[in-house]
Amino acid sequence: MTDDLEAPSVPGSAPGHLSPGDVGLAQPRDFVYGHPFTFRSGQTLPGFTLRYETYGTLNTTRDNAVLICHALSGDHHCAGWHSPEDRKPGWWNNLIGPGKAVDTRRFFVVCANVIGGCQGSTGPSSADPSTGKPYGIAFPFVTISDIVRSQKLLLEHLGVDEVHAAIGGSMGGMIATQFSIEFPSLVRRVLAMASTARESAQAIAFNEVGRQAIMQDPAWNRGDYPRDGGPRVGLAIARMMAHITYVSDASMDRKFGRRRSPAQGAAAADALDAPFEVENYLRHQGQTFINRFDANSYLTITRALDQFDLAQAYGSLEKAFVPVQAETLVVGFASDWLFPPEQNREIALALLRAGKRANYAELATDLGHDSFLLESEELYTLVRGFLEREQVVFDFTI
Amino acid sequence: MTDDLEAPSVPGSAPGHLSPGDVGLAQPRDFVYGHPFTFRSGQTLPGFTLRYETYGTLNTTRDNAVLICHALSGDHHCAGWHSPEDRKPGWWNNLIGPGKAVDTRRFFVVCANVIGGCQGSTGPSSADPSTGKPYGIAFPFVTISDIVRSQKLLLEHLGVDEVHAAIGGSMGGMIATQFSIEFPSLVRRVLAMASTARESAQAIAFNEVGRQAIMQDPAWNRGDYPRDGGPRVGLAIARMMAHITYVSDASMDRKFGRRRSPAQGAAAADALDAPFEVENYLRHQGQTFINRFDANSYLTITRALDQFDLAQAYGSLEKAFVPVQAETLVVGFASDWLFPPEQNREIALALLRAGKRANYAELATDLGHDSFLLESEELYTLVRGFLEREQVVFDFTI
Repeated sequence: MTDDLEAPSVPGSAPGHLSPGDVGLAQPRDFVYGHPFTFRSGQTLPGFTLRYETYGTLNTTRDNAVLICHALSGDHHCAGWHSPEDRKPGWWNNLIGPGKAVDTRRFFVVCANVIGGCQGSTGPSSADPSTGKPYGIAFPFVTISDIVRSQKLLLEHLGVDEVHAAIGGSMGGMIATQFSIEFPSLVRRVLAMASTARESAQAIAFNEVGRQAIMQDPAWNRGDYPRDGGPRVGLAIARMMAHITYVSDASMDRKFGRRRSPAQGAAAADALDAPFEVENYLRHQGQTFINRFDANSYLTITRALDQFDLAQAYGSLEKAFVPVQAETLVVGFASDWLFPPEQNREIALALLRAGKRANYAELATDLGHDSFLLESEELYTLVRGFLEREQVVFDFTI
Repeated sequence: MTDDLEAPSVPGSAPGHLSPGDVGLAQPRDFVYGHPFTFRSGQTLPGFTLRYETYGTLNTTRDNAVLICHALSGDHHCAGWHSPEDRKPGWWNNLIGPGKAVDTRRFFVVCANVIGGCQGSTGPSSADPSTGKPYGIAFPFVTISDIVRSQKLLLEHLGVDEVHAAIGGSMGGMIATQFSIEFPSLVRRVLAMASTARESAQAIAFNEVGRQAIMQDPAWNRGDYPRDGGPRVGLAIARMMAHITYVSDASMDRKFGRRRSPAQGAAAADALDAPFEVENYLRHQGQTFINRFDANSYLTITRALDQFDLAQAYGSLEKAFVPVQAETLVVGFASDWLFPPEQNREIALALLRAGKRANYAELATDLGHDSFLLESEELYTLVRGFLEREQVVFDFTI
């Protein structure tokens, strides 16, 4: 996800932060699971922590939970503010809140930082209790299934044994879909946006270049680096490149075109060499990212993304979907060239072929992959409609 | 250009290297210009060298020269072999030779490494005569116009004052087009493939990430590094990323899909973490590139690409084309997402609006930007037809 889209523009004044339309001050909490957890790889941890936030109230019938699943660089803080002084709200604040598309007056919203992450959940930067030092690359190989199974334990802890809907964009869409496969009776509705049942070679290739940028940075040191150090250069390069894949050519042209930053000097060579605005913007993206993300987590989570392949894991996409009980809405974005519309549509078609209730909607945005973060009434209406209709009626006209 | 496409598959035996269809052993030569040369930036060099090759013979009327213009990572060696032991011929050997689309029995083919390059022409890795050390980042800012004006001096040296055709792909197409603008009476035909009159913000963004990967590598040392050292890590990262942009999603999926390299061990984690073939391939691309390319030249030439903007330089694309006398054929490739078909077509349309003879052809390959290096009878027929018809008749049905 891109940093600018993670932070939709909001009124800058402090009172605006706590407007009636927002969930207000959000309180991160830690779920500490004190038992051994076995990853799909066979590797184990003696326990783990998931940092999470909730908004709204679990009702007495305990059937109003909505699970929000974040993307590669997202976290548990998807709505509200951490303090009145915060400059930015949670990354999906435009979607989640009282009266918003995901209405916290009605739903009990849960969002956890994924295992393997770096925003409070156990990941490569966490201390290995057996050594007292960060796990680094000794951290278990993480899969989307591991993310799902660890979050299932959080839901049990919260007393949630039925999820009204699991919602996510990009990797979040993979997680929501995997939930409906692994815990069919848990999930009633799945809303997967800008997602895929498996990445193309090109998407893997971009992730691999990012990983190489990190691992070839001498400061990576085979994953062994101090908490405030590490391969900052490599991580910034990885982020700059990835950012290009999150947006569309058209949106970059509209936002920056070929505009130059003000020339630094009067010499002709300087004028020719004045940076394009898009260059400064990308460098800023790289620099802000390294202050909030851990390089080993980036390696871990991009590998989870690349490894996700429902057809390979279950024999075929239709076989993967056999156990599914949820009704699924897949939303693709016309300008998404990272997980393009066809890959989104394929999920819905395979669900239908497997005899499941599914539909596909395509929005004609030109913002690219990150369109799921878009401030769009059309998207809000789609989400609200899918969540709030008593029974979802699909017309099967994909 | 990608290394695999630069080296079309050929019979491996030495006699095959010198087959009648090839130009045989090619002899690189140096054109040494001993007078001051002023760049568009206002910066000067006391002189420069261009390394070049020629194939075929200049006829007595001196009107059969074909100028081949190379792309970012190309060079002067576009056809034939340097020795019978060579593993690869010149990068456009499939197109150029006796009886080939650019027929060296008929045409006198000239190709020079661009100024600012690193394959024998004067560039950042050349010794500054005033210090005896490489120019490094003190090398003048290079533009496509500088490349054209320096090659014009080479043509004069060769006794060529009329070029039958200037041909190039990607940056080579920019150079060929710029030739027809700056030296209208010199160029009779222009064949620009996979080209653009100006890059989009996305293309600039990719180049900028590559430059940052180089410049943030500590071994770059502000451009001051030994000839056999330098930012090899950063240059490899830049190349890996750029390579993705030279090919299409479909071609990567066809070539690699999600196939894994053989697992290194039997543990489940190892199996999950077995590299995808596309990852190994990209790493190989990066590693071979750093042995043949100079990082400061990469910075210099990508800046020349980004800076190229005919509309900005001349007021509008139509105004840029006012002086053109050449007949122009622009060839776009459907799967090229770096310089997409629309950008190619725009060149031809603007030429037509300026009252010039131009046409546009689009080939439905799925190889992406590097399709101009394709082994394709359709492309050969197009090139041969454009070069050999006595008078080019266009039907203006773009």
